[in-house]
Amino acid sequence: MRHYTVVGLPNTTPVELPAEVRRLVAAHAVFSGGRRHYELVKSLLPTTHTWIPIAGDMPALFAEYQATAASILVFASGDPLFFGIVRTIQTHDATATLAIYPAFNSVQRLCAKIGQPYEQVRNTSAHGRSWQQLDEALLGYEPLIAVLTDGVRTPAAIAQRLLDYNFCHYELLVGEDLDGPHERLGCYTLAEAAHAEFLPLNCVLLRQTSAPTRNWGLDDAAFVGLSGRPGMITKKAIRLLSLAQLR
Amino acid sequence: MRHYTVVGLPNTTPVELPAEVRRLVAAHAVFSGGRRHYELVKSLLPTTHTWIPIAGDMPALFAEYQATAASILVFASGDPLFFGIVRTIQTHDATATLAIYPAFNSVQRLCAKIGQPYEQVRNTSAHGRSWQQLDEALLGYEPLIAVLTDGVRTPAAIAQRLLDYNFCHYELLVGEDLDGPHERLGCYTLAEAAHAEFLPLNCVLLRQTSAPTRNWGLDDAAFVGLSGRPGMITKKAIRLLSLAQLR
Repeated sequence: MRHYTVVGLPNTTPVELPAEVRRLVAAHAVFSGGRRHYELVKSLLPTTHTWIPIAGDMPALFAEYQATAASILVFASGDPLFFGIVRTIQTHDATATLAIYPAFNSVQRLCAKIGQPYEQVRNTSAHGRSWQQLDEALLGYEPLIAVLTDGVRTPAAIAQRLLDYNFCHYELLVGEDLDGPHERLGCYTLAEAAHAEFLPLNCVLLRQTSAPTRNWGLDDAAFVGLSGRPGMITKKAIRLLSLAQLR
Repeated sequence: MRHYTVVGLPNTTPVELPAEVRRLVAAHAVFSGGRRHYELVKSLLPTTHTWIPIAGDMPALFAEYQATAASILVFASGDPLFFGIVRTIQTHDATATLAIYPAFNSVQRLCAKIGQPYEQVRNTSAHGRSWQQLDEALLGYEPLIAVLTDGVRTPAAIAQRLLDYNFCHYELLVGEDLDGPHERLGCYTLAEAAHAEFLPLNCVLLRQTSAPTRNWGLDDAAFVGLSGRPGMITKKAIRLLSLAQLR
């Protein structure tokens, strides 16, 4: 049974680790994390150490972890329990034991800087994955939706998606390089954000600006019928009853 | 326009404040917070200081804030953006400017200690308020629900409520006095938790143990009809159509 110590790093430089984490670092010889994490912490590691880089190939990474006799200290960004490495470890090494030392997550940092209470935020990620989580949050009429982005699903792409599907009752709050040297905070309309450029390290909060229209059912006229036979459609009453029979 | 500096305190004793916060404390003369916060930080405050206690009467508190010429440093527990004092300040002093220095929130601390990823947690509070937020989360089939408790809506009362209304597909994770000297972590079935006692400072996470039955509509037979005339009821088709017409 392998033991992992997982340490979340803030985005501040130079990195300052809490005393408890410094003691753990001194007691380890094998470390792991992304390339960016190595640049941040290598001056803080024991002179003799092994670094196992985290790139993209998870099965190969965990094979390397399994081949290591010593316990491993893994560095992560922010809170490793927030869309982070802990879930990955639990998926690939089900019997692992974990000790976790988080930093603040990016949504929490954004909210602290703009004074936005966040207990009601619905967290979603589009980082390296589809729009599904965001779409579900939008369809659920969530008033506050956080979105983790990537180079494809950027703040501008999010704004364009909301415009395309007529979810126009939101504004975008964007935090770029939070706690870093190029930090920038902004509040944008969808139209503004759709044409803006943002630094690659960013975090988006969609905030409802007005109460949306909640439709409980689609009228027959809202469907595009067959040409010349617009009335040939399963009627609303039958559609609703069919949905209500689902198990 | 009044400026507030809001500092979240961890539950560790003695309290260690970050260097940036220590500088802010040294630059202030007027402080505010609960009685418990004063006990925690009074040795860290400048010798000559004013302490404005936060009890229950918010209009009186903000009248006292308004009568203070200096800027005020307010202490809070955990993250003041998580069911915390920031929303209260924004409600009672709409033009206030804020600088916020959070600590970790209690749900985040619980999750770090039990290795539970929390990005999908639905946060609710029953602290000094009704069951409404918890009920909405349960009716929304949320797989992970955090609940802030109080002396009436205890972990045991939560478990009993779930049993009473047949939401039996959850287990309770309870963190007591997190980061404090009497910290205790436990995982309980609803039946166990309903009869257990917990320390007053606690935090509950409801975790789904099996997929719940999702009903999309109630059958006519599920209603209690008039005695002798059980069929006298608005039928399912009409009930569904009525709901679907709502605007």
